[in-house]
Amino acid sequence: MIEEQKTTLAQLRVSIEAELADFLGERSAYLESISSDLAPVAHSLSSFLLDGGKRLRPLFAYSAFVGAGGVSDKKIIRAISSLELLQACALIHDDLMDGSDTRRGKPSIHRHFETLHQKEEMEGFAQRYGMAAAVLLGDLALVLSDQMLNSAGLDSAQMHSVLPVHDEMRVELMAGQFLDIHEQTQKNTSVDRSLKIARYKSGKYTIERPLHIGSSLAVTNLNSRKKLDDAYSAYGLPLGEAFQLRDDLLGVFGDPAVTGKPAGDDLREGKRTVLVAMTLDNSSPSAIVRFMNSFGSNDLSAADVEILREIITESGARTRVEELIDSRTSSALEALRHGGITPTGQALLTELAALSTRRSM
Amino acid sequence: MIEEQKTTLAQLRVSIEAELADFLGERSAYLESISSDLAPVAHSLSSFLLDGGKRLRPLFAYSAFVGAGGVSDKKIIRAISSLELLQACALIHDDLMDGSDTRRGKPSIHRHFETLHQKEEMEGFAQRYGMAAAVLLGDLALVLSDQMLNSAGLDSAQMHSVLPVHDEMRVELMAGQFLDIHEQTQKNTSVDRSLKIARYKSGKYTIERPLHIGSSLAVTNLNSRKKLDDAYSAYGLPLGEAFQLRDDLLGVFGDPAVTGKPAGDDLREGKRTVLVAMTLDNSSPSAIVRFMNSFGSNDLSAADVEILREIITESGARTRVEELIDSRTSSALEALRHGGITPTGQALLTELAALSTRRSM
Repeated sequence: MIEEQKTTLAQLRVSIEAELADFLGERSAYLESISSDLAPVAHSLSSFLLDGGKRLRPLFAYSAFVGAGGVSDKKIIRAISSLELLQACALIHDDLMDGSDTRRGKPSIHRHFETLHQKEEMEGFAQRYGMAAAVLLGDLALVLSDQMLNSAGLDSAQMHSVLPVHDEMRVELMAGQFLDIHEQTQKNTSVDRSLKIARYKSGKYTIERPLHIGSSLAVTNLNSRKKLDDAYSAYGLPLGEAFQLRDDLLGVFGDPAVTGKPAGDDLREGKRTVLVAMTLDNSSPSAIVRFMNSFGSNDLSAADVEILREIITESGARTRVEELIDSRTSSALEALRHGGITPTGQALLTELAALSTRRSM
Repeated sequence: MIEEQKTTLAQLRVSIEAELADFLGERSAYLESISSDLAPVAHSLSSFLLDGGKRLRPLFAYSAFVGAGGVSDKKIIRAISSLELLQACALIHDDLMDGSDTRRGKPSIHRHFETLHQKEEMEGFAQRYGMAAAVLLGDLALVLSDQMLNSAGLDSAQMHSVLPVHDEMRVELMAGQFLDIHEQTQKNTSVDRSLKIARYKSGKYTIERPLHIGSSLAVTNLNSRKKLDDAYSAYGLPLGEAFQLRDDLLGVFGDPAVTGKPAGDDLREGKRTVLVAMTLDNSSPSAIVRFMNSFGSNDLSAADVEILREIITESGARTRVEELIDSRTSSALEALRHGGITPTGQALLTELAALSTRRSM
């Protein structure tokens, strides 16, 4: 049974990637027909989209669609694949805002265009060109995600049903992103504030709303899917928090070979997460001083990273975050038994819960 | 007759602003209900949208709707008003990419948040916070524009008709924006390349596509509006170029009291426009050396600006651009007589042609 589900998710990923490749191939040809100067834009966006990614958001949407009794076809796969383009916008702009050099082991978009500027000895400032290119590639990915969804061939009832959820999700995403960058400017950390950010950035955007998108495509009447959507929220919100908490742990303790980011990257960025807020809430004054001394320094050595990791572990924050992940994931799985989710949907969502919170992600 | 049309455009502007105020009021309340930390986001986006602007894109869309025989109602006004939110995204991101300090005489969004960071003595770097806020406010404006359009209450036929045009317009906008920032990195200027950028940024995005959006809302069958859309293209593309060329002239010769930007701002930015390309194509080698010596310098004095203006005028580029504006505008007005545009539509579009290319804009 487990094996069969794995094949299904893997097959789905292949279908999602085929739709993305098809859509991006056609759009790239169009962009290059406007001007050959747009070739680097088309290429870098395509390789950003096609060279990796777990496809979590489309997979959640698909599973919720099946869980709502939907029978999938090419149109559905195409519609849900558009979520990957929205996510590309979020990641490209996120890397720019965080000043991250890499994404999945390759240069981030702003760094890529900065390097292009230097290599081709262009006029003006390389850094500004990289920034502008990342702003525009993110914007382009966002409008392309809409275009892919709107042109997927959904019928009028499905469009009327899915668009309000899709729009709300994107407003929540931008709100969560702003709260996140704003949090980095605060004098004090707060577990509550960081949990709210996790709720908007991941609970809602990554999981709950993709599930609602899936159910809205299967059951176009809002009242008819109310019970189902409630169950999806009860599964999605805690699982999304667990997903974000795992991401926070990986940003500090993750293996670069797996994360595609340098070791301890979040420590270098000084990223205020639930993990960091818990560390500061539960450390001695001298440990806090030592922590804040190097937390957020651009030039952290491997030894500095190790010291910060030790303070986090010794404060008990690492264990508490692991416990939170476990309890949130258990709540999520418990919710799957309610709301009338089909057995196939339950099986897929059980597997996705494991996939989105596992240690080696 | 002229007076009556003026009243109509002014009344329309009031209706557009009322729809924007209503939508943004509700959305601001929602954002602040998520967190009071989102209040500065809601406030600055609302004041950006409501404190000015000519509302050109909604006015073009409305005029084309009426020109196609449509009878307007609240839903139509709401749908076309969403174009102002898209334009807000374009301007916020544009100011960030250009490093512009002001917009309509007030600080640009990135500068506003940079100052907020300094005033409230937040942690981290003010410049980075300003940049991130501008990226996210632009993104938010973009998704809100979609939400406003999608929730305007259009019927299924109108949605099916308008979404493909709307999506294509946004891809063209991002393509034009990229070509524009890329142009600034080239070793040589080119009148042809700059005209292509004007075509995408203004011909298509500012005028042709808003017109097609208007006609798609009035006549939902693509074949039935083919002749009309062709007439709108024949009007919109040359008029859009004329609009961009006027903008280029204002960026160099405009009165700060009218433009809301410092005198000669485009010269300080080193913006490569059709005007600049024509200047360099028609100046003596020594004039070119003098021009390039201060063009694009951040610390241009009033005297430097005057010298650059003289070189532009002496090259004949200023006169040639004025001539181009006249001939493009004439072509546009000539096209209004074809395609079966209603007399009311023709009158509105004639007035808009004057409004969008006039010297004192």
